[in-house]
Amino acid sequence: VTSGRADADLPRHAAYVAIVGPAVAREPALSQAREVGELFARAGALVLCGGLGGVMEAACRGARAAGGITVGLLPGADRAAGNPHLTVALATGLGELRNGLLVRCADVVVGVGGGWGTLSELALARRVGVPVVLLGSWRVRAPAGAGDEGELGAPARSPRRAVELALAAAAGR
Amino acid sequence: VTSGRADADLPRHAAYVAIVGPAVAREPALSQAREVGELFARAGALVLCGGLGGVMEAACRGARAAGGITVGLLPGADRAAGNPHLTVALATGLGELRNGLLVRCADVVVGVGGGWGTLSELALARRVGVPVVLLGSWRVRAPAGAGDEGELGAPARSPRRAVELALAAAAGR
Amino acid sequence: VTSGRADADLPRHAAYVAIVGPAVAREPALSQAREVGELFARAGALVLCGGLGGVMEAACRGARAAGGITVGLLPGADRAAGNPHLTVALATGLGELRNGLLVRCADVVVGVGGGWGTLSELALARRVGVPVVLLGSWRVRAPAGAGDEGELGAPARSPRRAVELALAAAAGR
Amino acid sequence: VTSGRADADLPRHAAYVAIVGPAVAREPALSQAREVGELFARAGALVLCGGLGGVMEAACRGARAAGGITVGLLPGADRAAGNPHLTVALATGLGELRNGLLVRCADVVVGVGGGWGTLSELALARRVGVPVVLLGSWRVRAPAGAGDEGELGAPARSPRRAVELALAAAAGR
Repeated sequence: VTSGRADADLPRHAAYVAIVGPAVAREPALSQAREVGELFARAGALVLCGGLGGVMEAACRGARAAGGITVGLLPGADRAAGNPHLTVALATGLGELRNGLLVRCADVVVGVGGGWGTLSELALARRVGVPVVLLGSWRVRAPAGAGDEGELGAPARSPRRAVELALAAAAGR
Repeated sequence: VTSGRADADLPRHAAYVAIVGPAVAREPALSQAREVGELFARAGALVLCGGLGGVMEAACRGARAAGGITVGLLPGADRAAGNPHLTVALATGLGELRNGLLVRCADVVVGVGGGWGTLSELALARRVGVPVVLLGSWRVRAPAGAGDEGELGAPARSPRRAVELALAAAAGR
Repeated sequence: VTSGRADADLPRHAAYVAIVGPAVAREPALSQAREVGELFARAGALVLCGGLGGVMEAACRGARAAGGITVGLLPGADRAAGNPHLTVALATGLGELRNGLLVRCADVVVGVGGGWGTLSELALARRVGVPVVLLGSWRVRAPAGAGDEGELGAPARSPRRAVELALAAAAGR
Repeated sequence: VTSGRADADLPRHAAYVAIVGPAVAREPALSQAREVGELFARAGALVLCGGLGGVMEAACRGARAAGGITVGLLPGADRAAGNPHLTVALATGLGELRNGLLVRCADVVVGVGGGWGTLSELALARRVGVPVVLLGSWRVRAPAGAGDEGELGAPARSPRRAVELALAAAAGR
């Protein structure tokens, strides 16, 4: 077990992907999040999320089902609040500031479904240059003269397409 | 100077108000931000901002002109990057995570002008229940079924109205 | 008040000084903290602290008595927890992580009295190269071979000497 | 792969253990850190660290050799700065504030070797009530009257003993 080749099997994740969406969600967001998580795991990506329920839990469930690694950055200080499909649950105690940490640690952010917290994360990613992919999520365009023209992110019509767009964007960074 | 009454003149700020907007801005946003800052200072409010130029600097200029106190939470680690109208410049080194800190320290957030960073701050405030007032800023409405229906914030047509709305909202918390 | 020269009186603080020490403290730490705060304010320095009682409150009381500006970075999310001698109270909600923020925003750190939180702040300052002055506080020396030899900070025998050492160190950065 | 039993193999980590120590270290700290990491992994604990070299890398190497999961909270914004034995590398961009995050996410902290950053983390853990175990690390005692009497942590004479003490402390929380 302690041979020199110990890390021969170390996963080299293709990308760190943040999947963001509300903790209370409905169909089709939940099924979409699960499929997105599964496809990312199959592609060798690591799934980051806010660690709670709803879209976050569905994404982790999908990723774990495909053998992937999932990391939750929880807002509170209690690890037990994490959903049951997290490989790693970090109880940051940062409250909503953990959203910024999540964006910072990711190569690409995929929004599934709505909610104001989700919009905050997506807009922050857009601001700092982390690519954004949208699946049934916010569609917002900067007002003319904002100095930051354009769309919030690239819309996708299916989980498969969202994953393709996200992995291409992550590879291009 | 060291009498027991030393704090008799301690300012008891009516409210802590965050003014958010882009570092590169045009008219009318700059004039509006300056007027908003001045009106808040006259009302005894403390002005918080991200500490940089554009809307942030204009708001601080107005507040200082009226004798107010201004606090900048800078993203970088260099205090010298703060605009010249800050009473207190805190070089947080937190990058864009300082946006979340700004929202957290405020009783109300006023958005002046656009930009993705501004949207991120406003959406975060909306998410955590800090009242949002909008002056020539983002107009966004949650999609049906997002679980978080409604508008991003209360629109105002003038600096005077924005300040009235903000102080009323801060007092009501 | 709103003339173009509005900022002619803008304070250009000589230094940003963090005074750290326990929230529950005894004499002589309290008197020393008060005197240190007062001397810093007279020298035109801005006083930063953790915003709570004990050494933090005493330092703010002294600084305010001399007309200085005091800023408290509170661990919790409730501004009302701040001591009554704060010009600015920022309820960071960061818990003990606000200690790192305090060190980062300061040009020099003065430790008054003991406690583990205080040691944590002083060691962090030492680590990141912010000068440390000690007044009745921890005396710790790195073990040989730690790669980081030396003392935790410069010991001072009186508040006056602590302030002299701190302002000299801040000016030399 | 997507069966209902997908999480049957989900690791339920016995404990989240932070191993802290300097990025530039010598023997015996490096061998000790490696052995500590390996023993923790065998016991089913997840290893957290600051993600860089020296003691951090040695601990991860040991843990990975025993099939464990390692998580690095890097100070910078570049994931590539992480050591090669990390299962998950989070580029927090928080600088030294990531030390506080590390302590917060852990059930117990083990210090191996010296350095001021290490002392800062250990004192912070002591402050917030996370148990501390020391292996060839700082030996510090609170001064009388500090209100926080006692030792920094429990000293261990061997990696095996450090792991025993740490797992017992984590289980007792």
